[in-house]
Amino acid sequence: MNKPYVVGMDMGGTNTVFGIVDARGTVISKSAIKTSTHDDVNLYINDIYVELMKLINTAGGIEKIKGIGIGAPNGNYYTGNIEFAPNLPWKGVIPFANLMADKFGIPAALTNDANAAAVGEMTYGAAHGMKNFIMITLGTGVGSGIVIDGKVVYGHDGFAGELGHVNVMRNNGRLCGCGRTGCLEAYASATGVARSAREILETSNKLSLLRNIPSADITSKDVFDAAMQGDEVAKEIFNFTGKILGEAFSDFVAFSAPEAIILFGGLSKAGDLILKPIVENMEKNMLNIWKGKVKVLFSELKEDDAAVLGASALAWEI
Amino acid sequence: MNKPYVVGMDMGGTNTVFGIVDARGTVISKSAIKTSTHDDVNLYINDIYVELMKLINTAGGIEKIKGIGIGAPNGNYYTGNIEFAPNLPWKGVIPFANLMADKFGIPAALTNDANAAAVGEMTYGAAHGMKNFIMITLGTGVGSGIVIDGKVVYGHDGFAGELGHVNVMRNNGRLCGCGRTGCLEAYASATGVARSAREILETSNKLSLLRNIPSADITSKDVFDAAMQGDEVAKEIFNFTGKILGEAFSDFVAFSAPEAIILFGGLSKAGDLILKPIVENMEKNMLNIWKGKVKVLFSELKEDDAAVLGASALAWEI
Repeated sequence: MNKPYVVGMDMGGTNTVFGIVDARGTVISKSAIKTSTHDDVNLYINDIYVELMKLINTAGGIEKIKGIGIGAPNGNYYTGNIEFAPNLPWKGVIPFANLMADKFGIPAALTNDANAAAVGEMTYGAAHGMKNFIMITLGTGVGSGIVIDGKVVYGHDGFAGELGHVNVMRNNGRLCGCGRTGCLEAYASATGVARSAREILETSNKLSLLRNIPSADITSKDVFDAAMQGDEVAKEIFNFTGKILGEAFSDFVAFSAPEAIILFGGLSKAGDLILKPIVENMEKNMLNIWKGKVKVLFSELKEDDAAVLGASALAWEI
Repeated sequence: MNKPYVVGMDMGGTNTVFGIVDARGTVISKSAIKTSTHDDVNLYINDIYVELMKLINTAGGIEKIKGIGIGAPNGNYYTGNIEFAPNLPWKGVIPFANLMADKFGIPAALTNDANAAAVGEMTYGAAHGMKNFIMITLGTGVGSGIVIDGKVVYGHDGFAGELGHVNVMRNNGRLCGCGRTGCLEAYASATGVARSAREILETSNKLSLLRNIPSADITSKDVFDAAMQGDEVAKEIFNFTGKILGEAFSDFVAFSAPEAIILFGGLSKAGDLILKPIVENMEKNMLNIWKGKVKVLFSELKEDDAAVLGASALAWEI
C-alpha cells in the first residue's frame, strides 16, 4: 500500500493524544501534549506538529500517511470546524480540520471526540457487532456518541449527540461550562464529582477522609480513593452521581432504544461504585418495555486508544 | 396494477381511523370506530372488520388490497406486537398485526402511531424533503416519531421514540398513565392540559371563564376557547404547557440535532398560544450552537390523514 498509515488524534479538554495507526487498527506509535495550556490555537497546532512529525518521520515520512482523523469537543463532521466548545481554550468557530490539513499538507477530517470513541468501540471494543448503542464519555466534560443502525448520528448540522448538555436539574441547577445551568456535565464529569464533594463537605458535618484534602484541591480521583477505603461520604457522592446518570439514561433509552449504553473515560474506572447506582436508577425510571433489557457496559478499550482508533477510522474515508 | 390499494389505519387512545389509499397517496375512502369502548381486542377487531370491509367492498373487494399498515401506540415494527400500551384498553402484549392479517387474510404491518405520522409528514407534509426531524404528536397522549438520515428510528427492539415518557419533573411530578411520574405526557397531552387547568383553579382564586365549567369536565378544548376569549388563566395554562414542551425540546435537539420539530395532533390547533412559549423556552434552554437554527412547525396534513397515509406507506413494503 502506497500510504499504509493514518493519524488518529483525540483532543480532550486537558490533554491531546495522537498516534500512527495501520490498516489493521494497531496503534504503532503514540504521543501527547497538553491542550489546556494553549491559549492560541496556532501555537497549539505548532506543538502538535513538532511532536507528531517525530512519529511520522519514524514511520517513514509524511508520504506514508493517508490523512489525519480528529476527535474534538464540539467538532462538526460536516464542516471540519470546532464551534463554541465550552471546555477548550479557544472560543467561537475554529476551522480546525483545515488548519491541520494546511499545516501537514495532507487531508484531515474531524468529528466530535465522543463520536470518534463510539466508532472505536464499535470497531474494536465492547460495542463490536452492535448496531444501536450510546457511548457516554465521562471525562473533563461529559460527551456522547450515538449509533443508530450502525451509523454515528450527526443530525442536520453535524452536532448531534451532546448528551452532556441535557438538563438534569431544572431548578437551581449548577452552572455549566456552556453557560447554562443544570446540565448533566455539571454533575457527572470529573469536575462535577469534585463539585459534589465540595458541596457535601461544606453543607454537612459528616466525617470524611476527604476533609484531609484542601477543599479546592479535591479531585474525582480523591473521591474514588476515599470510597475504596470505605468512606461513607465518598460513597454517597458516587451514589448521587450514579443516580443523576441513571435517570438521564432512562430518558436516552426513550429516544433511541439502544442495545447498550457504554461508559468511557476517567469516571468509568470507578467500576461498581458508579455502575450500581446507574443501573439501579436507570431501571427504576425506565418505561416497562425496557426494564431489564438495556445493558450498561464499560468500554473495553484503553482510554487513549479508543478515541485515537475511532478518530483514525475517519482518515481512511477522506 | 393487480392490487392497486392499501389500507392505512391509525389507532388512537380514543378513536381508530382507517382508510383505503391508492398508490399516489390519495385517501379514497375513510371510516372510524371508537377504540376506548372495546375492552376485548377481538371484539375491537370484529368491529373494524365490519366497517372496513364496507370500504374494501366498495373499492372492489379484498383481492384489490395489497396489505394493511397500522399505526398504534407502543406498536413494535419488528414484531407487529402492541406491547404494554398505557393509553389502550388492552394490557400486556397483543400480536395485533398477526390478528389483523388472520382476520382479513392479507398481510399486515404495524408501527408506533407517531412513527406512522412522521412517515406521512415526510412523504406529504411539512417535513417533505427533510432528512432529520422529530414529529411530536400532542393528542390523548404524547408520542414521537424520530427521523434521522431520512429513516424512522426504531432502535434495538423496535420501540425507539417514546419522547412522551421522558421525565420533565423529577420531584413531585404528576402520575402518568404509564405508572411512572413526571412524564412529558402527563403535562403536554390534551388530558395534561386539562389537569393543569384543574390544578390552577383549585390552588388559586384567580377569576377565569373556566370556573363556569364543572372542574372534572374541563377539556383542553375548553382551555383553548377560554384563551381565545382573552382568559388570563387559560393563557397561563398554555404558557406553562409550552414551557414544559420547549424545555424538553431543547434536550431532544441535543440528542439528534434535527432540522425541525413538527407538532401534530389536537393541541397543535392552539396555534401561537402554544407555539410562542414553546419556541421561547426552547431557544432559552438550547446550547448556543443550536440557537435560532431549529424550526418548530405545525403539521401540514389533516390530523386523520397524516397517520392513515403514514401507516398505509408500511403496507406497500410488506
